[in-house]
Amino acid sequence: MTEDAANPRLVPLSGYAYRMEIPTRFGDNDMLGHANNVAYNRYIESVVTQFQMQEAGVDYVKNRIAPVVVETLCRFHRSLSYPETVQAGLRVGRLGNSSVTFLIGLFGADDHATAAATGHFIHVYTDRDTETAVPMPAAARAVYERFR
Amino acid sequence: MTEDAANPRLVPLSGYAYRMEIPTRFGDNDMLGHANNVAYNRYIESVVTQFQMQEAGVDYVKNRIAPVVVETLCRFHRSLSYPETVQAGLRVGRLGNSSVTFLIGLFGADDHATAAATGHFIHVYTDRDTETAVPMPAAARAVYERFR
Amino acid sequence: MTEDAANPRLVPLSGYAYRMEIPTRFGDNDMLGHANNVAYNRYIESVVTQFQMQEAGVDYVKNRIAPVVVETLCRFHRSLSYPETVQAGLRVGRLGNSSVTFLIGLFGADDHATAAATGHFIHVYTDRDTETAVPMPAAARAVYERFR
Amino acid sequence: MTEDAANPRLVPLSGYAYRMEIPTRFGDNDMLGHANNVAYNRYIESVVTQFQMQEAGVDYVKNRIAPVVVETLCRFHRSLSYPETVQAGLRVGRLGNSSVTFLIGLFGADDHATAAATGHFIHVYTDRDTETAVPMPAAARAVYERFR
Repeated sequence: MTEDAANPRLVPLSGYAYRMEIPTRFGDNDMLGHANNVAYNRYIESVVTQFQMQEAGVDYVKNRIAPVVVETLCRFHRSLSYPETVQAGLRVGRLGNSSVTFLIGLFGADDHATAAATGHFIHVYTDRDTETAVPMPAAARAVYERFR
Repeated sequence: MTEDAANPRLVPLSGYAYRMEIPTRFGDNDMLGHANNVAYNRYIESVVTQFQMQEAGVDYVKNRIAPVVVETLCRFHRSLSYPETVQAGLRVGRLGNSSVTFLIGLFGADDHATAAATGHFIHVYTDRDTETAVPMPAAARAVYERFR
Repeated sequence: MTEDAANPRLVPLSGYAYRMEIPTRFGDNDMLGHANNVAYNRYIESVVTQFQMQEAGVDYVKNRIAPVVVETLCRFHRSLSYPETVQAGLRVGRLGNSSVTFLIGLFGADDHATAAATGHFIHVYTDRDTETAVPMPAAARAVYERFR
Repeated sequence: MTEDAANPRLVPLSGYAYRMEIPTRFGDNDMLGHANNVAYNRYIESVVTQFQMQEAGVDYVKNRIAPVVVETLCRFHRSLSYPETVQAGLRVGRLGNSSVTFLIGLFGADDHATAAATGHFIHVYTDRDTETAVPMPAAARAVYERFR
């Protein structure tokens, strides 16, 4: 079990060290009238990539040593729907030599106490040339320690 | 652990009872030149929804008792890239009273022996009016038994 | 020619009566490193649907008389790229009995004087039951007149 | 007017020199139960990029002289909906020194006589280093001549 909380669904938005607003888009909703399950993965990716670029110094295109996604998980508790703005929370869970697990909570516009969806996203620092896992940079690790 | 195989990555395409071809689209690739992680979730959804409609009699729009996704997992082992055609395999894992877990393997055009990605997708039969889990229809259960 | 400006590209953001910010998403960029052409259509849809819901009283799901898209055009002048925030401008062009043409400008984060892309989006008010064009509601027309 | 037919909607699928099947995806449908307007643009991009790679020798990533999209148009005549397979037709319209206009027809599963949507997609050959339009390669022009 990668998630470190007894019940991640009960972690409120304020329990996430990094937060961002994600406006939904019309096309996020599917024919059932709610955000399609794949849209949740898009929201999770959005908060992870913004965090990695803004806080941890990641440049996905230029860096030779860069994080590569190895696993994503999403659990769906309540529906999110366009046109509401999603609040995404991120904190760092397990921190390995090469890998970092981001614990994610997605919250609807009206309820910041219990998550509409929870999940995780695991990045492994990888050497693009050799395509092998490598230790993460010390500067990135220091950032991740701050967001545990 | 929802997946019942010791190492799902080693289950070949032929080990999945239901299979479909999924042509990739130009826009599936992201700026790193490979299918974006969220595209994998789209492929997983594609094989699950087609299976549910074609084999298990699901009509997402008309049925009052219909499956709702509660969890998706994807593990990324190798890159998939446009313009290759993805081969998706599905078999039924855990089968509960209301829930069915689909075990998924995604294979690239050139390697049908080891999966490029593995994961699962859990559906829970739900009464749309009361939004509560209900036992799955017997006919659907019989189908799932055949695809274990 | 639906667009009423001599050169719509030269209409600045401030020349559009309705404006919204659209954060780009990682997956909007394609393998060429810029927002994929289809993402521009998504941005155009975003500003049109938000305008229609917030200003013109459209409820796409509930209204029996509702606007249906009949034509979209996009001209690409400069690249937009994640992670920049797009500024979208909308004004009303041709206003018919049933149809309204929205003239759109998309601007990058750094240049609000000349558009990165221009285009239009034509809605025709349609009776969902008969699937035929019908005159637009007077209240909606009054709104459109204000945003010409 | 870029389209050269008196009424492109009446050009049957067989009137397009290049054709491809495009399976729809669950997520292509929006909350109105039909393929979202932006999905049509995705279908148009799909047939253009496959044609350019398979027939005209385009490698979007490696070529220094490569086509860049400058305009897309889509007219919506009838709804397309998941799970149907779309039939896309492409033929070459206006052929300039640097630019090529692809005329597109999208057909539903049941009607290959009149298009569900028509449109065009204009590519301009561009030098990636200088970002200026350049004459298209003679080999590509010869291909386009064959598909007029």
